[in-house]
Amino acid sequence: MPGQPHHVTVIPGDGVGPEVVRSAQRIIAAAGVAIDWETAEAGAEVFKRGDTSGVPQATRDSIARTRVVLKGPLETPVGFGEKSANVTLRKLFETYANVRPARELPGVPTRYAGEGVDMIIVRENIEDLYAGIEHMQTPDVAQCLKIISRKGSEKIIRYAFELARREGRRKVTCATKANIMKLTEGLFKRVFEELAPEYPEIVAEHLIIDNVAHQMAKDPAQFDVVVTTNLNGDIISDLASGLVGGLGFAPSGNYGDDVAIFEAVHGSAPKYAGKDVINPTALILSSLMLLRHVGETTAAAAIEDAVLVTLEEGRAVTQDLARQTGGDVERAASTTGFTDAIIANLGRQPSSVPPRHGWERPSGEATPRPEGTPRPHWSYGAAVSAAVPRATVGIDLFLESWEPALSAGPALEALAGEALKLEMISSRGTMVYPTTGLSPDNVGLLRARFVAREDGAAVPDEEILALLDRVSSVGARFAWTHIEKLHVFAGEPGYTKAQGQ
Amino acid sequence: MPGQPHHVTVIPGDGVGPEVVRSAQRIIAAAGVAIDWETAEAGAEVFKRGDTSGVPQATRDSIARTRVVLKGPLETPVGFGEKSANVTLRKLFETYANVRPARELPGVPTRYAGEGVDMIIVRENIEDLYAGIEHMQTPDVAQCLKIISRKGSEKIIRYAFELARREGRRKVTCATKANIMKLTEGLFKRVFEELAPEYPEIVAEHLIIDNVAHQMAKDPAQFDVVVTTNLNGDIISDLASGLVGGLGFAPSGNYGDDVAIFEAVHGSAPKYAGKDVINPTALILSSLMLLRHVGETTAAAAIEDAVLVTLEEGRAVTQDLARQTGGDVERAASTTGFTDAIIANLGRQPSSVPPRHGWERPSGEATPRPEGTPRPHWSYGAAVSAAVPRATVGIDLFLESWEPALSAGPALEALAGEALKLEMISSRGTMVYPTTGLSPDNVGLLRARFVAREDGAAVPDEEILALLDRVSSVGARFAWTHIEKLHVFAGEPGYTKAQGQ
Repeated sequence: MPGQPHHVTVIPGDGVGPEVVRSAQRIIAAAGVAIDWETAEAGAEVFKRGDTSGVPQATRDSIARTRVVLKGPLETPVGFGEKSANVTLRKLFETYANVRPARELPGVPTRYAGEGVDMIIVRENIEDLYAGIEHMQTPDVAQCLKIISRKGSEKIIRYAFELARREGRRKVTCATKANIMKLTEGLFKRVFEELAPEYPEIVAEHLIIDNVAHQMAKDPAQFDVVVTTNLNGDIISDLASGLVGGLGFAPSGNYGDDVAIFEAVHGSAPKYAGKDVINPTALILSSLMLLRHVGETTAAAAIEDAVLVTLEEGRAVTQDLARQTGGDVERAASTTGFTDAIIANLGRQPSSVPPRHGWERPSGEATPRPEGTPRPHWSYGAAVSAAVPRATVGIDLFLESWEPALSAGPALEALAGEALKLEMISSRGTMVYPTTGLSPDNVGLLRARFVAREDGAAVPDEEILALLDRVSSVGARFAWTHIEKLHVFAGEPGYTKAQGQ
Repeated sequence: MPGQPHHVTVIPGDGVGPEVVRSAQRIIAAAGVAIDWETAEAGAEVFKRGDTSGVPQATRDSIARTRVVLKGPLETPVGFGEKSANVTLRKLFETYANVRPARELPGVPTRYAGEGVDMIIVRENIEDLYAGIEHMQTPDVAQCLKIISRKGSEKIIRYAFELARREGRRKVTCATKANIMKLTEGLFKRVFEELAPEYPEIVAEHLIIDNVAHQMAKDPAQFDVVVTTNLNGDIISDLASGLVGGLGFAPSGNYGDDVAIFEAVHGSAPKYAGKDVINPTALILSSLMLLRHVGETTAAAAIEDAVLVTLEEGRAVTQDLARQTGGDVERAASTTGFTDAIIANLGRQPSSVPPRHGWERPSGEATPRPEGTPRPHWSYGAAVSAAVPRATVGIDLFLESWEPALSAGPALEALAGEALKLEMISSRGTMVYPTTGLSPDNVGLLRARFVAREDGAAVPDEEILALLDRVSSVGARFAWTHIEKLHVFAGEPGYTKAQGQ
């Protein structure tokens, strides 16, 4: 029953991308959904033409117009681009919520079959180490910044709770490494704990990320919705996919305030490209998330049922699945044949899986209903920040130096000046001055912490610049490479102690 | 056949720690190994006495003397300590190699039983985000530094290759996120690739960490030795444990150049403390690694055989295992009873597992034999660093500011001065000035990159300090919080571009 066509940007992508995208498009058309596809380019060819972002302006314009994207995998060819075009797309359109359902499928053999695995990993998609801000501190010491903001944390954690509420899910698990990273991962955990009471019908629990990985291997059916920071989410969402059949069956949606991008998780698999052999299930399942996002829930349900019928009957089986089940790879279904089988099964109901109601399905509408839009728990902005009581009480100065702490310490103390003092020196986070009697390995990078001589007194910029000037004057002996101010915000130290301090 | 007693520091630790440690000590004594145990304290009680490190000087002194530690789990009581005492111990003694074997055990039911899972995760134990260097950039944006050094990477990667060689293992897999973090995780990967040719008999492969998690769920038997950075290793070693029976069976060793610390991976499980119900297998297996480390390989083999016999016969089964196998929990063996059973089985051979030769067993001697000590591939030190051609070509200045990039950009350009120019501004790693036509979400932290007006020219410290002085002079509008120098080392830019740049 075609109504007004939906406008959707489609990026066929690299390798097997065009084939799996074509499969999803054919099925959507057969299900009677009218989509006006705007075909757009990104990935390998774009990089090779010299666009170092991999995402040309015409594609950006199309997405800004349609606000909905179906995309195949993109390659970043070695030597042409520095940043993955997949990541760039997610960042440019601020799709902060990466949603990865991992659900047992009939006919897909796994060691966990029959246990009822049915979880959704909600991964923060913008911040964390994926901000990609890296600096060589010395010729042999590299650094990447892990950035976690309260606002970014609130957005993704709200997204997870709202998703759980919308889909009638019971529990949201927050997975962090807050026990080690008390300020960054700890902020994420604290935001989770402060928001949870707003969702009293949902069980809120926090688990340490390594325990989550452990529990996923031991008892994955315990998980429902899992919300986590970017790198943690990257690892456990791929782990979760591995429990239910692998990347060939792993859909994903990237949701922002304005734009949503739907893609398979798997790569471009160039060795299978153009051979009509790839399993398109992951992209088909992703396209169902797209259909639900644009409100085509009935068609999405019909397609999902047809996919489930096709998998449970096992008459059309793609090569990858035939290989896994010990079936006849020679007689496996082509991508086209598998797609035809799904189309032929439209209108049928699966028999081996429990009935699924629309509201239970992974991913409902992504945009919160206006009447249900949650109010932010915190306010953000210049006035709010300015109202936070604060003081700068020192600096951490990172120096390229191989000098033993026992001689570097007094020399740096001598440079501290009248207002400041050297509080300690650490090497890779472990205090080496004042000495603890131990000499951890030296990698040629020291961190010297300077604070006011007067306990807890504020340190103005002039003092910091004067200190830098004195340190610079001794030249290569203490070549500074990086400075962090030590702030106290609302009475809480905004910095951690060194190990052993 | 007791010879000279070995001197070992034993830290019974918190919760169930004393019970599992006692179990291991009894078995070692029964196997005829003479150990002079120096009992030492660390953990909860120490924190509560006001020692914020959780590791008192007497314990540090004992370890410095014995250089070998058997320890139970330590707690960091909320409100008393900021850093985990477990981590502090590893850092203080620079035990850079965390070794976690994950091997199928008879009688321990898992979904992967019979597949021959037998891998060793070698995790870098000092660097990465676990340096614990965190700074609040603004009241609502937290940052943690991920630090990866060439020297630290070489040490752990060599450790993994030497371990593989010593134990006759076939393959070493390096697991990183080098595709996203090209400087940090990329450095680890490059070091791996440069060292691999020195071990031609060992297959060297690199896999992206999320793929490793995925493959561990799908086909864990493919892994042999896996070497990885600290956080990655934390997650996948717990995952690997989950595949072969869980933390109750997960031993670990932390090896440094001087000191080795052997501990179970599980926590202190306070609710089981003092009840004689805990499964001591993990600590017993850890103590085998200790025995091999001090050269007691025959006794270690005898104890391992006795543990395997006890598990495969299943006559003495601890509560946790009885619960997993649907056995009678009421009649489960106590910690003491299970220990007695192992002691009674000393001298017997397991029947259901293939014979294991000493050199095949997880962890051999930790200290490389003198004649086999590998030469460092690189040299490290002040002279080596100083010889690297270098230039500082700009700075990244992190500013607390909510100002839209469109107005912040020109204002910062005006502050750049005569020698410098503003190259770009980014927000959480995505370029926002010059404008890309998109406005990603603002979290109140901008990164402004300044470079020389003259392309690629060096920027001396005086210029940087003058810039900082100008930025400071405008006060709260652009409150700077963090500075990174942009270095070019040996012709390679030591910094990454922003997304969209």
